[in-house]
Amino acid sequence: MTETRDGSQSPWVIDFADGSREMRDLLGGKGANVAEMTRVLGAERVPAGFTITTDACVAYMDGDGSFPDGLEDQVASALGRLEAQAGKRLGDAAEPLLVSVRSGARESMPGMLDTVLNLGLNDETVLGLAERSGNERFAWDSYRRFVQMFGNVVLGVAGERFEQAIASIKSARAVSLDTELDADALRELTGEFKTFYEFPAEPREQLARAIGAVFDSWQGERAVAYRRIKRIPEGWGTAVNVQQMVFGNLGESSGSGVAFSRDEVTGAPQPSGDFLANAQGEDVVSGVRTPKDISELRAWRPEVHEQLMDILQTLERHYGDMQDTEFTVQDGRLYMLQTRSAKRPAQAAVRFAVDAVGEGLLDREAALMTIDPSSLDALLHPTFDPSADYEVVATGVAASPGAAKGEIALSAAEAVRAAAEGRETILVRSFTEADDVAGFYAAQGILTSEGGKASHAALVARGMGRPAVTGASAVQVDAGAGEIRIDGRVLHAGDRIAIDGSLGRITLEDVPLIEPQVSEHFHTVLDWCDELRSLGVRANADTPADVIKAIELGAEGVGLCRTEHMFLGDRQPLMAAVIMAEDRAARAEAIEQLRPLQEADFEQILQAAGGRPVTVRLLDPPLHEFLPHPNDLPEGSPQRKRVEQLQESNPMLGTRGVRLGILFPELYEMQVRALFAASARIPGARIEVMVPLVAYERELALMRTLIERVAAEQDHGDYLIGTMIEIPRACFQADEIARDADFFSFGTNDLTQTGLGFSRDDIEGRVLARYIDVKILDRSPFETLDTPGVGQMMRMGAWLGRKTKPDLKIGVCGEHGGDPDSIDFLHHSGIDYVSCSPYRVPIARVAAAQAAIRARRPGSETGSGS
Amino acid sequence: MTETRDGSQSPWVIDFADGSREMRDLLGGKGANVAEMTRVLGAERVPAGFTITTDACVAYMDGDGSFPDGLEDQVASALGRLEAQAGKRLGDAAEPLLVSVRSGARESMPGMLDTVLNLGLNDETVLGLAERSGNERFAWDSYRRFVQMFGNVVLGVAGERFEQAIASIKSARAVSLDTELDADALRELTGEFKTFYEFPAEPREQLARAIGAVFDSWQGERAVAYRRIKRIPEGWGTAVNVQQMVFGNLGESSGSGVAFSRDEVTGAPQPSGDFLANAQGEDVVSGVRTPKDISELRAWRPEVHEQLMDILQTLERHYGDMQDTEFTVQDGRLYMLQTRSAKRPAQAAVRFAVDAVGEGLLDREAALMTIDPSSLDALLHPTFDPSADYEVVATGVAASPGAAKGEIALSAAEAVRAAAEGRETILVRSFTEADDVAGFYAAQGILTSEGGKASHAALVARGMGRPAVTGASAVQVDAGAGEIRIDGRVLHAGDRIAIDGSLGRITLEDVPLIEPQVSEHFHTVLDWCDELRSLGVRANADTPADVIKAIELGAEGVGLCRTEHMFLGDRQPLMAAVIMAEDRAARAEAIEQLRPLQEADFEQILQAAGGRPVTVRLLDPPLHEFLPHPNDLPEGSPQRKRVEQLQESNPMLGTRGVRLGILFPELYEMQVRALFAASARIPGARIEVMVPLVAYERELALMRTLIERVAAEQDHGDYLIGTMIEIPRACFQADEIARDADFFSFGTNDLTQTGLGFSRDDIEGRVLARYIDVKILDRSPFETLDTPGVGQMMRMGAWLGRKTKPDLKIGVCGEHGGDPDSIDFLHHSGIDYVSCSPYRVPIARVAAAQAAIRARRPGSETGSGS
Repeated sequence: MTETRDGSQSPWVIDFADGSREMRDLLGGKGANVAEMTRVLGAERVPAGFTITTDACVAYMDGDGSFPDGLEDQVASALGRLEAQAGKRLGDAAEPLLVSVRSGARESMPGMLDTVLNLGLNDETVLGLAERSGNERFAWDSYRRFVQMFGNVVLGVAGERFEQAIASIKSARAVSLDTELDADALRELTGEFKTFYEFPAEPREQLARAIGAVFDSWQGERAVAYRRIKRIPEGWGTAVNVQQMVFGNLGESSGSGVAFSRDEVTGAPQPSGDFLANAQGEDVVSGVRTPKDISELRAWRPEVHEQLMDILQTLERHYGDMQDTEFTVQDGRLYMLQTRSAKRPAQAAVRFAVDAVGEGLLDREAALMTIDPSSLDALLHPTFDPSADYEVVATGVAASPGAAKGEIALSAAEAVRAAAEGRETILVRSFTEADDVAGFYAAQGILTSEGGKASHAALVARGMGRPAVTGASAVQVDAGAGEIRIDGRVLHAGDRIAIDGSLGRITLEDVPLIEPQVSEHFHTVLDWCDELRSLGVRANADTPADVIKAIELGAEGVGLCRTEHMFLGDRQPLMAAVIMAEDRAARAEAIEQLRPLQEADFEQILQAAGGRPVTVRLLDPPLHEFLPHPNDLPEGSPQRKRVEQLQESNPMLGTRGVRLGILFPELYEMQVRALFAASARIPGARIEVMVPLVAYERELALMRTLIERVAAEQDHGDYLIGTMIEIPRACFQADEIARDADFFSFGTNDLTQTGLGFSRDDIEGRVLARYIDVKILDRSPFETLDTPGVGQMMRMGAWLGRKTKPDLKIGVCGEHGGDPDSIDFLHHSGIDYVSCSPYRVPIARVAAAQAAIRARRPGSETGSGS
Repeated sequence: MTETRDGSQSPWVIDFADGSREMRDLLGGKGANVAEMTRVLGAERVPAGFTITTDACVAYMDGDGSFPDGLEDQVASALGRLEAQAGKRLGDAAEPLLVSVRSGARESMPGMLDTVLNLGLNDETVLGLAERSGNERFAWDSYRRFVQMFGNVVLGVAGERFEQAIASIKSARAVSLDTELDADALRELTGEFKTFYEFPAEPREQLARAIGAVFDSWQGERAVAYRRIKRIPEGWGTAVNVQQMVFGNLGESSGSGVAFSRDEVTGAPQPSGDFLANAQGEDVVSGVRTPKDISELRAWRPEVHEQLMDILQTLERHYGDMQDTEFTVQDGRLYMLQTRSAKRPAQAAVRFAVDAVGEGLLDREAALMTIDPSSLDALLHPTFDPSADYEVVATGVAASPGAAKGEIALSAAEAVRAAAEGRETILVRSFTEADDVAGFYAAQGILTSEGGKASHAALVARGMGRPAVTGASAVQVDAGAGEIRIDGRVLHAGDRIAIDGSLGRITLEDVPLIEPQVSEHFHTVLDWCDELRSLGVRANADTPADVIKAIELGAEGVGLCRTEHMFLGDRQPLMAAVIMAEDRAARAEAIEQLRPLQEADFEQILQAAGGRPVTVRLLDPPLHEFLPHPNDLPEGSPQRKRVEQLQESNPMLGTRGVRLGILFPELYEMQVRALFAASARIPGARIEVMVPLVAYERELALMRTLIERVAAEQDHGDYLIGTMIEIPRACFQADEIARDADFFSFGTNDLTQTGLGFSRDDIEGRVLARYIDVKILDRSPFETLDTPGVGQMMRMGAWLGRKTKPDLKIGVCGEHGGDPDSIDFLHHSGIDYVSCSPYRVPIARVAAAQAAIRARRPGSETGSGS
């Protein structure tokens, strides 16, 4: 028992009527919620009950499994008050009070004892319930379920024993569905269940044992494991909620339903929902009977309809968010069982936020917090028309959102050729590699039979905003034969196919696509975000088209312009010649051929950026990406030998980034020269030269010298030089590295790979799945930043960098720059801007605004509705 | 000028007679050394002179390149004292004083102006020198050299101009050697040189300009770059030493020589050395004339011999180390020009240390500090007999010390077969892979045509103590044809070959080998080390033979017993079956077949360890190491498909270590079960189970649960569970990880790879060579720990780990555990023990003792003699 300030002790048991949502720590989430609803709607609207506090649980655990002093008495008197209010008594043969017992920790926790329903039933009270409900089968079914549930969850009797008994009796009675068992059969079954364990007939004993079981479940194996991974303190304990049961199936003046305070699909300001007369809540959602629209309540019971509409408005105003409720009508009286923020699709979320501000329900900041930014993706890509009928021939991983249709192209070259002829294609491969990238640009969408959300195909597709379905294992790709097989069907290159990368679906039909519309509401929301956020948002964009798209979606500049792609496609042979050159002269010649091409690339990009800053990353690929495959070269040829020599066993940790620039300074020099030349032709161009993969301060110093020399030769004075921080050592030596850097940009993809020792290509899939399974991870560290490891490295790097240079500009590029959870962390880590793929720019703008709001309003939670 | 404590100012110029070695900061290394020698031997034994202090240089730089007030006067008066002492005057036509001018910073620094000799010569004084020396050619050659050196180093005239002029005159006079130019030619040449720049004839001006040039060289480009990489502060400045020239070639009563205070090869306590009458120092070392043994000095000039013997003993006692000196006799008078600690081979170093203590010259600690631990390697391996004559057919990298002879084996299988038949082999491969490891055990030595000091072949060979020469690019291996080609010769499998891995040499002759002897002196030294060191020394040992060798060499236990090798060779198919198993049952069956084999492995190792702790690392290889190569399997077969699926693009960052244990817990369970079973049969066995590659705390928690369960089942209570820390994230989360760890062992090889983003296999060779070239690195980070990055990660990891568990035991395994420089850092980083390959155990024992001594006696430097 907790000492209160005046020295008295707080009670172990608190009635719903006396609690509130502020008492979450003491009452748990569920208890606080039902108390709050009782407080707001009045005691008559919420089935009465009481909560046994988390403190009681803690005292129970400390006392080694016995109820703390006073708990039994307090439960007894709370029960007395409940009985008085309900006008029924627990164990009363004629008018029995039945209660539910539910656990409820501060945070919802799977693995804990969840619910015991219909507590209070025994051989006597079941008769009263049958009598009172006029439905003997219902009464015996309730009793049967209670005995089963009590035995299973409170006493740990194996679930299969009950299931086997049910199977036997169904077979004996020659029926196939549980619902076909009549009252008599259920009575027999209940009797048999009671032989499985010593069933306590006395309702008060039932209650005490159920409470103890909830307490014990806090220490259960699964709950302990869950707390460990979620870092939920052992010492919190769980509360126990005891609540009067109400029934919607007591006749034609009873019923159950679900109701939303606004349209749950569009967000339009009209309540929506379903209900069924003479039914329990599960009947409404099970689909066995077709429920009626909530508006028909008016005809059925006008006063209930009116009460419900009032309540929805009250709850919405009270919680400041669109509500999703459950209700039961028992004998004409409306009870609210549950209210919570409504899950909603992106368009509804956006509409609600704008309307809520218009209606004065919320201020802008609070309204923005109701949006789940990661849902917004759906607003930016075409999708299969949800109302269309089509056959799904295979499914895969929803790897990059959007839908696309086209002819099957089995190679990048085929896709490029088709694009040149104006034909639309879907690039279909087992998996993709750097060689395929030209095909990504040419194709409308990507389909692979292998790889997950973080496969090469998925990453590149998301980066470019191309729809992609990956890991569609039913699709067998035989590029050699020019065909693919799906489930017995054979398709050839050129056949039409369609994919939806938001749903992970593949079809052969010509499904209509719904084009995305950035609605007026969405624009309003994004404008508010720009006013509120402090974190800058740039885009990762490698082509003029990407840059234009990014700016359209609100990017303030280009945070990462990769130059690798500029050396692929038809330029690859030139680049291969650079790398394989035997001497300086041959290398210089090959490089010189690349310069004008590179210059044109940069000119177009700077033109598209229109005076916004553009961070150009000097070349950073593993060497072999530019080289032909050794098997494609004649055996024993010098070329093959050289290519074989250049093969690396771990390309990710090999000759990349600045290492390439140190080995072949001519290459970086050519890039820098082309960049300065291009920028001289674009008035107002703002360029930031970025050196990748720096681990040693002197690597950057040498490159800075090179860049400054070229700049001086071209008389170019207005530019920044910076580096990517993507190697753990760089974080530890950031103070030294900052001496030669005007800016840092954290390359969180590679920092995650090196900091965690995880190769993205190799770990995604089997290892990641297993890690999530055994709860080492809850999602991929390539999706959301690993804050305890990689995040701390970044903070160290930012801090050390600014120790040397207080005004050092610090950005983040990489997948995490578009991930809302990561953005929140970055907001608090001294980062100036994030840079993400163009289609994630709006998401980043919202997430950045929310991070700023959350920092000002501690305790705000985002998008609680989804 | 520096303010001294009493408010007066310290002088800019200090005579040699007034300095000492304690004044190194002010006088620079060279100035302090010659002053010390003057102090110890008396002014008459060391050519006189004075030092212009580093303070003067700093003032010169601050004053923007003009001499600070008072410097000119102080130089003039120092010069006056020097002239008085020498009895000659600078610029005197009859008896000219000549001086040398040398730079001398606190630490020796390449890239700075080094030396100007014979300053003071001009058209007049050269005649005096000719007269005085009776050697006109010598005088003009000295003058010619001075004009050339002054123009080149003081005034920056290009060296080629002088070289061209010399070439022209040689051609005009039809001679081919410089030495064939007579006095007349040299006179002409000197005249021509003087047209290249305005030669200052006035000696005092020569001196002032030479001093200024030394000051300026402190700011020279190469010096600045060097300081940057060595982190030498700009503000130190350099000193300038002006010293009287003496000449050993003034006639038969003059001469030059070098002398060691003890035998420089054996360390025996008799002085050794060479001398030449009527010669300059360079004649003694150039080999043009054959020098006489120092003992013959006695016959030539008995008093000089006696003086020199006295001086050698005096210097040795004074410096407390074996000395290497240079001397000149001018007109019968002995001058000491230089003394420094003598470089010496390992046997001499060890003998000196023991003798020095016996003679009361040094205490044990000081004696140990004279040994360079990395030289000791030579004492532990056989070598080619240095006196043997043999043809070296190719050379390569001295990758693993020791010499070996045997038949050429072109595959591991061939080596294994030969070993079974009692034949000795050298395994010759282009490069080696995990598959070859069985061959390493079977062969006497390894030879590869590719790879450097950190290649797979080199690492594994060093780990096992097998001699290896790698990267012998002249050796062309054609395993298919069963032959190798060296420089036109064709050799076949079975032909005899011999390698010396300490020298990097390959020969076809039957060179006699010298077997290593761990001398009594060496044992004495190692015993002292064990008393003095606090860092424990264990060995990395995977076989009973390794364990026995390690213990023989003083290991206190096994710090790393890798289990990968136990699954290669004939067990590989079983292991491949485990990985490729389609279901649990098939996997379990394959694993069960491995268990008894594994148990026998462990039993033998624990037996060999004899009650010393053995750290067994659970399996940690990239998956593919156990799998057949896909090309070796039938095209389209399910096996091939599965193997292809399991291929990883970056195996180093893939499914390794604990990730394997999480995916296939049955495998780790089998290993642990076998280990406990084996340990139950060896009384007193001490086992430490080590989980590799942990990044997340829960990885270890899950494995700990598994290990404890198996231990409990087998009723085994006495063991430790720990983890390798080899991923940067683990260093950041070490406090969490320590909850489930009884010990940490830093895997510095992998921590270097991940922390630096460097794949050892891929970066060694071309990239590393280039990085050393451009001074980003001075050696491989896989050889000596990267302390600013990896070292700081380790300190963070150790600190956080001990925050959770103050008595956490922390070790280091990996190459760095046997590297003296790294050991010194580890001694200061809270590490309890290092573990290294058996043959490096003695080196680690010495290095650990030295680290402890250095910590107690700040300022001690190790093995200054080498």
